[in-house]
Amino acid sequence: MAQNIYDNPDFFGGYSQLPRQLLGLDGTPEWPAIRAMLPGLTGKAVADLGCGFGWASRWMREQGAASVTAYDLSENMIARATAQTADAAITYHRADLETLELPKAGFDLIYSALTFHYVEDFDRLARMIGDALVAGGDLVFTIEHPIFMAARHPHWIVDEDGHKTWPVNGYSVEGERRTDWFTKGVVKYHRTLATTLNTLIKTGFQIHQINEFAPTTEQIAALPDLAEELERPMMLLLSLRKP
Amino acid sequence: MAQNIYDNPDFFGGYSQLPRQLLGLDGTPEWPAIRAMLPGLTGKAVADLGCGFGWASRWMREQGAASVTAYDLSENMIARATAQTADAAITYHRADLETLELPKAGFDLIYSALTFHYVEDFDRLARMIGDALVAGGDLVFTIEHPIFMAARHPHWIVDEDGHKTWPVNGYSVEGERRTDWFTKGVVKYHRTLATTLNTLIKTGFQIHQINEFAPTTEQIAALPDLAEELERPMMLLLSLRKP
Repeated sequence: MAQNIYDNPDFFGGYSQLPRQLLGLDGTPEWPAIRAMLPGLTGKAVADLGCGFGWASRWMREQGAASVTAYDLSENMIARATAQTADAAITYHRADLETLELPKAGFDLIYSALTFHYVEDFDRLARMIGDALVAGGDLVFTIEHPIFMAARHPHWIVDEDGHKTWPVNGYSVEGERRTDWFTKGVVKYHRTLATTLNTLIKTGFQIHQINEFAPTTEQIAALPDLAEELERPMMLLLSLRKP
Repeated sequence: MAQNIYDNPDFFGGYSQLPRQLLGLDGTPEWPAIRAMLPGLTGKAVADLGCGFGWASRWMREQGAASVTAYDLSENMIARATAQTADAAITYHRADLETLELPKAGFDLIYSALTFHYVEDFDRLARMIGDALVAGGDLVFTIEHPIFMAARHPHWIVDEDGHKTWPVNGYSVEGERRTDWFTKGVVKYHRTLATTLNTLIKTGFQIHQINEFAPTTEQIAALPDLAEELERPMMLLLSLRKP
């Protein structure tokens, strides 16, 4: 079972105060890039894996999705998502992505934001998602970028010229990474970019688009702290199709 | 025109002494991984872009390629490759990949090792390669990994625990990088992994396999210095098909 850090009170208290939780998609800098990767939603049956407070689930339904079936491991998340949603076509369920089985060919689009790096068995997850999509269905997901996740101690350092610099080590050594984020010992699973892509290709997906999120000039002008995201990618956004 | 650093005497003198130049493919740690990505060669018309001394060109011909048409910007390289080859089905030509035009649908396989990162206009090159391949043709190439290339001063540093660490900065700022390697001011062009892959996808290629070269346990046992390659990928190996 994946670690359920989101129901840890210290973690949940801090996490809930992030701009992307308080403001939803407007507080999520990578959202315009994700939105540009999504297929048309009208009439689609959508699954949202790791839905959090349900911001994207509700947005996809507003864009015309016929239904959004949303999953999260966290009881706190599901409770708040349910409380914030008044739409019977959106349903929220507790589920562990290590073991979740979705109905075969049950969805036109499977969406997931910043969740799969908590899952140890990505082979199984990719196969399950492949089976759960109809032919011609889409998978759009984001994860923490392996450049961001690889190092034993991932944090900003300063190079000899005073430039913000990100350390990379252990990149080819895949597996568990424990970091401190709102609480101690948050468990994530580092995979190389090659492993993530090759796993999806072997499962039968075609890669449509890759985005290593970088803020636009306009975003940096509005929020100067985002400039550091130009130094190293924190997130990897992928759009794939099941032929 | 691309910088012709390989005909700089200081550069050429140092470069010629690298194990991969003295020993050929046996001195090239990533060669087994490349070989595993190559399609069957029997009867194939092959182009080798950036052939250097022609080690891979000769190997591909020995494996049954009908012809290997090899290109390099360096006069020194072409002269030595020609002198080391006694096979009329392998021809060597000087060419700048910024402007080279190959015959349309003229090749079954286009191969390139550690060359495309010297090319500024990758859009043009990808389109030209796409046109030069037959339907069902393969493109297999290696480049310096963008993690390796991105930083202003790419070199090993040591983290707070004494681990070898590679600095990443400026990752999303694409374009020229000048480094010192045997001589001063070697010019390369940094592109994000997303740009490289998206350019190829837009050109019409399907991605078959991605490899961020890491040495095997056996390779490290035989050559312990290779262990550092586990810390960050130096090379990106890609295999693609034109449908």
